[in-house]
Order: sequence, then C-alpha cells, then structure tokens
Amino acid sequence: MSLIVTGTIGIDTIRTPTGSLEGALGGSATYFSAAASFYGPVRLVAAVGGDFPDKHMAMLKGFTGVDTRGLEVRPHSKTFAWGGKYHANMNSRDTLFTELGVLAEHPPKVPDAFADARTVFLANSAPAVQLGFMDQLPQRKLTVADTMDLWINIAKPDLVALLKRVDGLVLNYDEAELLTGKANTITAGRHILDMGPRFVVIKKGEHGAILVHRDGIAALPAYPAETVIDPTGAGDTFAGGMMGYLAAQLASANGANIDPGSYTNIRRALVHGTVVASFNIEDFSLTRLATLARADIDARVDKFLGMVRV
Amino acid sequence: MSLIVTGTIGIDTIRTPTGSLEGALGGSATYFSAAASFYGPVRLVAAVGGDFPDKHMAMLKGFTGVDTRGLEVRPHSKTFAWGGKYHANMNSRDTLFTELGVLAEHPPKVPDAFADARTVFLANSAPAVQLGFMDQLPQRKLTVADTMDLWINIAKPDLVALLKRVDGLVLNYDEAELLTGKANTITAGRHILDMGPRFVVIKKGEHGAILVHRDGIAALPAYPAETVIDPTGAGDTFAGGMMGYLAAQLASANGANIDPGSYTNIRRALVHGTVVASFNIEDFSLTRLATLARADIDARVDKFLGMVRV
Repeated sequence: MSLIVTGTIGIDTIRTPTGSLEGALGGSATYFSAAASFYGPVRLVAAVGGDFPDKHMAMLKGFTGVDTRGLEVRPHSKTFAWGGKYHANMNSRDTLFTELGVLAEHPPKVPDAFADARTVFLANSAPAVQLGFMDQLPQRKLTVADTMDLWINIAKPDLVALLKRVDGLVLNYDEAELLTGKANTITAGRHILDMGPRFVVIKKGEHGAILVHRDGIAALPAYPAETVIDPTGAGDTFAGGMMGYLAAQLASANGANIDPGSYTNIRRALVHGTVVASFNIEDFSLTRLATLARADIDARVDKFLGMVRV
Repeated sequence: MSLIVTGTIGIDTIRTPTGSLEGALGGSATYFSAAASFYGPVRLVAAVGGDFPDKHMAMLKGFTGVDTRGLEVRPHSKTFAWGGKYHANMNSRDTLFTELGVLAEHPPKVPDAFADARTVFLANSAPAVQLGFMDQLPQRKLTVADTMDLWINIAKPDLVALLKRVDGLVLNYDEAELLTGKANTITAGRHILDMGPRFVVIKKGEHGAILVHRDGIAALPAYPAETVIDPTGAGDTFAGGMMGYLAAQLASANGANIDPGSYTNIRRALVHGTVVASFNIEDFSLTRLATLARADIDARVDKFLGMVRV
C-alpha cells in the first residue's frame, strides 16, 4: 500500500497522576507507524542516536508491518528525548523538557526503495523538514501533515507554505485556534481550508474529533474509555489508524481510480483512528499496541459503531 | 401526550464576551417547555411574582404548545432572578447573583387537570421540590430529573432520595464528577446508575453528550455550531427537545405498550435535544426559539444526522 511516514523517534519521560515512566519508547513516527502497521506495511523514515536502547529497537521491529529500512542510527548523536507531565484530567499536559539530539541535525533521507510511496504522513516535526520530505515523493497521491503549537509560534511562514501543498492537516483544537485566531472550531477549520488543504481534522482528545472538509463537516465522539493510563501518542496513533485505513483502501482499489481523501473516506478513517488511539492510552508507551491484534481493532470498531450510530 | 414540567421561571441578566442583556426571560422550566412545545403540548407548573413583565408572559404564551394553567402568579412576591457571565470560550460561566423570590416560598401545585401526566421532567430545582412534584403524578410512566452543583453541595441526601425514584437523570459532566467523585465520565455515569436511575445523560456543552444506560453506552457530538450568541438555556432546551420527542413517541403509540426510556428511544431523543439546543444558543434568551418552526428542527435533524452518521 506504500504508506510512508517521517517524524520523531523519542525517549520519553512520562508523569501521570497515577504513575510515571522514564526512558520509554516514544515519538510521533513511532506511535504513528506502530498504529498504521495493523492495516498494512508502513515505511518509517526517522533517525535515532547511538544511545537508542536495543529493547526499544526490538519493540519497534516487533511491529512486523513497520519497514525500518529508512531508520537511520547515528552512532555519535543522541536520540530525541521528551518529558511530559499530565494534569489531573489527563486531557492536557506540560512539557517538562525537550532534548533535540538528532532532530537538530540534517533530516533522514528517503531510501530509494521508498520513493514510490503514494500515501504520505508528515508526523509532527519542523514544517521545513516536512516540505523537504514530501518533495522526495513524486508519486504521492494523498499527503497529510500533523503540526503543533511550537511550529505555529516559531515557523509559521514554513507552515503556511506547507499548508498550500498538503491535502490534509490534523491538529489539536487549541492549535487550530492558535493558527487561525478563531476560537470556534468549525470557523477555525474553514480558515485552515482557505490556507490550502482540502480537509482538516481537529482533534479534541477525550471529546472526539471534527472533520472540516471542502465537501462537508463531520463530528465524531471519542471512544468512551474508562481506562486511561497514558495519553501520550493518542494523536499520533489516531493519525496512524486513520492513514493506515486510507492507505489500505487505496491499495485494495488495485489501480482503480479511488479518491482516498474524499469526505466519505476520511469519515470512515476517523473511526479507525479513534479506535486505535483508544487502545494506545490503556497503558504506558507502546505497551498496549505491542500486544494488540487486528481482530481486537475490528471488534472495537464494531462496538464503537454501535455506540455512535444514529 | 401529557408531558409535564416543573422548574424555574426567571428574569435573567446575561453577559457574554460579545454583548449583554438585562431583564431577559429565562428559567429552566421556561426554556424546557418552549423547546418541548415543538413536539406537542407541554404542561408548565411554575410560579412568578407580581413583577413578572407582561412582555415575558406574552412571549411564553406565544409558544402555543405550552399549557400555562399551572403557572401561578403571586402578586406580592418577586420572580426568581439570576445573573451570569460567560467566559471567552462560552463553555463555562460564573453566577453573578441569584435572587430566589418565589423559589423561597411553597412550590406551585399541580392543577387537577394536569394530574394524569405520564411523562415528567423535573427541571433544575431543589430535590425536595422535585420529589414533592412527582408524588402528585401517580400515572407517570417516565420521570427524568435535572440537577446542578448547588443541590449536590447543599441537598445531597434529598438528591440521593430522588435518584432512587427517577428513571433518568440529566446533568453536566462536572456535576457528574462532583456527585460521584469520579473524573472519568463513563465511570461517573455507572456510579449514578448504581444510585438508582435506569439511565443518565451527561452533557458536555459544545462537546456533546454521553448516555450511560443500563442497556448500553452511547456518545453524540454537539451540533457543530458557528453562531453562539448566548448559551443560557442550552441544557434546558436540550432536555426539552429530548423529552418532547419521547413524550410524542409515547403519545403516538396510542396505548401500545412502548418503553419511552429504552436505550434506543433515548438515543434518538438525544439527537432532537442536541438540535433544539443548537438553535437556542443562536440568540439571547428565547429570541431564536420564538421564531423557530418544527420544519426548521426537522431540517437540521437531517443535516446533523448527515454529519454524525458513521
């Protein structure tokens, strides 16, 4: 299906109201690719340092759908590290520290074997890096980017240039407000469409997601989860389930002229993103995804549809 | 269809980030009965003082479905008055003042002509008043109560007694946490079922509503509204649309043994509550509802279903 992603691989320190974990496997591309791997192969392009633990490499490679030929290990560099502390409601957090490591160096290159990718996800990283990545993928048919408040604040011109060229954007509701100056989520979404993309998925954490698409608006609640241990990676696994589903649609079309970014396809994809993310938050780091099976996802998709069907 | 409601009729002072209004028609029973009146007749039991303006009485009676024979005018008393100020995001507010007036006196009596009501809504008022009201309605088939943080704080034993006897409860997510001590909305909902009701509807304002029912869980987003002028009465009109729909179901069953409080019926009713509330917030006080037609509701229900159908 030739889904490709670039983004971060990180070593996370996570503090929640009920527990904490040091030195955990994390990063936007890690969570994304693990989540998408339940739908088919996913090509990972990212870099780590010589300090990247063997056990983390083993866990990442344990997701058999993740193609790690684009994973660069830079022996004399340090892996990106991030620490975060969640508030009591688990829906917001503070960043405790960020150590860029390899992220401050040149971005990893797309291997020749990956250059024919058609479905592209630009996980959270500098917009200039995201732009450089998509330029190496001439056969891309659907390109979707994630972003965050940091880039809106320090690299807005690059982000504006990126938005002119992607099909879709996913971001949090507060980031949508920061980007557009509009507090109303729908109004913010419309403004983002005016900046270029065909659709924007605005994530609201435990309150679900809103799709603002040139062909219509849709709203989907989150999966009503009772077990929330660690929300880290919820947004990335949401994107992974969503993009994995879309890439699989494109692959199964087998040359037929389908439109993976259509209003209808994105809506269906949001259900998968929601469900994969709902598993991810049930344990720290990628622990829950590591034992997950596609059948678990399909069963929860059915259960979720039963809860939200009107 | 014999839907009956008791609650407050108030004179509101409302401040929002974009405007303010003094001396507006408000109150939980006012908003509820206006909203429910689009679905059929609704019997209003409430009291006002001699200061209640003629223009407010005219507006209330302008909702032709509202049966005001249970509206007591007490010439020597004062109408309940409330002032509120909304925060920038419109999803939370501070109470500026509360003048109880008639609410500090004996509750209004159920007229004999209303005593055969089958669908009962106990809009927000003291739990002891709500209990006394339902005791006057021996033919009730479905009884649903609203409550608020004030009663959880100062009248919890009465509220606990009420919960043992109602079929359903509607309340805000933060009130559900206050009542149960559980921050997770689903967990809080389950605890409330343990206190007696067959179902609880937990409202999350712009983020929609969660139904926790003995027969299942459901989640529904709010209508993606871009025009939010005054959120006052959103919860009461939500309940009005919901209960109006349920009462109409019961009425149209025409003696057949239907169960208005079933999981399936409540889910459908939430759609109507959501849509009626989405109109209410488009203008101050009851201004928008005063010009609304049932056809407008039906058209938006269709539009909303198109946005949330999965």
